[in-house]
Amino acid sequence: MTALAGIRETPGLDAYLEALEERLEAAVSSHRGTVAAVGAEALAAGGKRLRPLLVYLASPPGAPSPLAAGVAVELVHMAALVHDDVLDRAALRRGQPTVFATAGRDAATATGDFLFARAFGELAATGEPAAVQALSAAASALARGELMQRADAWRADVPEERYLDRCTLKTARLFDAACRLGALFGDPPSGDLDEFGSYGERIGLAFQIFDDVLDVAGPVERTGKRRGTDLLDGTVTLPLIIARRRDERLAAVDLRSITESGEAEDLCDRIAATGALETAREAALGHVDEAKATLRRVKLADRRREALELVAEGVVERYG
Amino acid sequence: MTALAGIRETPGLDAYLEALEERLEAAVSSHRGTVAAVGAEALAAGGKRLRPLLVYLASPPGAPSPLAAGVAVELVHMAALVHDDVLDRAALRRGQPTVFATAGRDAATATGDFLFARAFGELAATGEPAAVQALSAAASALARGELMQRADAWRADVPEERYLDRCTLKTARLFDAACRLGALFGDPPSGDLDEFGSYGERIGLAFQIFDDVLDVAGPVERTGKRRGTDLLDGTVTLPLIIARRRDERLAAVDLRSITESGEAEDLCDRIAATGALETAREAALGHVDEAKATLRRVKLADRRREALELVAEGVVERYG
Repeated sequence: MTALAGIRETPGLDAYLEALEERLEAAVSSHRGTVAAVGAEALAAGGKRLRPLLVYLASPPGAPSPLAAGVAVELVHMAALVHDDVLDRAALRRGQPTVFATAGRDAATATGDFLFARAFGELAATGEPAAVQALSAAASALARGELMQRADAWRADVPEERYLDRCTLKTARLFDAACRLGALFGDPPSGDLDEFGSYGERIGLAFQIFDDVLDVAGPVERTGKRRGTDLLDGTVTLPLIIARRRDERLAAVDLRSITESGEAEDLCDRIAATGALETAREAALGHVDEAKATLRRVKLADRRREALELVAEGVVERYG
Repeated sequence: MTALAGIRETPGLDAYLEALEERLEAAVSSHRGTVAAVGAEALAAGGKRLRPLLVYLASPPGAPSPLAAGVAVELVHMAALVHDDVLDRAALRRGQPTVFATAGRDAATATGDFLFARAFGELAATGEPAAVQALSAAASALARGELMQRADAWRADVPEERYLDRCTLKTARLFDAACRLGALFGDPPSGDLDEFGSYGERIGLAFQIFDDVLDVAGPVERTGKRRGTDLLDGTVTLPLIIARRRDERLAAVDLRSITESGEAEDLCDRIAATGALETAREAALGHVDEAKATLRRVKLADRRREALELVAEGVVERYG
């Protein structure tokens, strides 16, 4: 995400991100033994800290640093990944072994619970009940999205609308909460909480759709995993939904018959051949544009607006 | 628990417990589909509402009802049970099918996450950051206790002290939080928060030790499960720890060799023959006495003190 390089010039951001890593490390290593060991793994696998970045950028310059909110949002994200990997029996994430793979199913389930609980403890330190409510809403949406994904598994004919609902629950609502939490920390809090939330939700949707495109488009060097893992899990995403409308033979494929990586990659090629990847990318770009339009209705320092626009574009650039 | 019958006369309690059921039902059925279905099952399996009862009794009479805190504590308890049943692959709880059994591992994991998230949302409604912190501490202790139990599985020589640490994390800290939460709702909050917490922790320990005795003592008509399920899971509890000191041949048993219910029941008989069940019961009674002694140091209306003493005795009465 080279667009994100420009964002790093935001005053105070480097110090915030550094403090964030320290607080995250302290949160997972607060207890000796298994939690510290597996928590550290979850932490290392964490990646870009995109959600805490949103918290920071949505908070007004000069406001007391919304560090606790950034930590809380990232801990919920980490907890969700750890449980996700248990459900998917995933051995790797970003090319690193998952907590599930190294510590086992039981320890990974309990570790996810621990990270979840810690998230709310961190957030309580802000003394802001509205923040706890926003994070709780996002976390329960995440769980509902997970349930929806499992309920819809192997259903190749899942409607596009339902796919978008699932993306909203599983991904976009936590982006929404991150922006909302940041904007809460003004004094007084921003009057544009819903607009900030809506911006977050839009880029969350764009982010998830791009991620789903990437699973079909690859290449493995970029994603750290073979193409078609969603197909092998029975998770139906936008590229397949679009491609099935354009290719009757694709529409007839029973996903349960796809059991080998090679077969999944062949199916990816057939999806790509319909032009579905471009259409899905355009849909995601549409959400990015809407996110930027929402920002224009919000009272914001110019510098912050630019940074938030760069983030919106950044989730696209991964495919530039 | 016939002692609990006397507690029901506490003014306002019936209305509180009725409202609690309504709020719990609303919390799990707030979304159509899988969550509502499996959440309702978890709710039905819930039982005695002992933790919300503690919240109520620890709150000062006439204070605004600490309903949200009672709901939050019970939701965390439910979430833990649902995840526990996933880890134990348990088909039954209190004689009812578990969420794991009816909805499967994936849905049960996500349902637990959902209940967890809802708990903090409910609690945020109290506008009390200290409450969120107390519940978060209890919920992360619960997860750490779960990790400890898995780490110690099949270790027949686990020290008694470590067993007690595990009981504290897995069970007693949520009892502690329940009492603390109740006491927070005075205006001003009770100056005896730590004493209330300590009372809760003691009866939580007594509760867990009794539960572990019951797993060995049975009978099935009382517990809804066959004797020795802990032994079959590799979970070493106080009765076995004591019995191993008294019977060399018991000390030599490799728990992994016990794979059939019949064998586990034989082992239960051998544990009982050492008198370990009486010794474990006495240990639990000691915690009950300490809980009551702690109460005497607390400023409390007489009626509330009596009710809290009855609760402490109630966890014993199950074996009277």
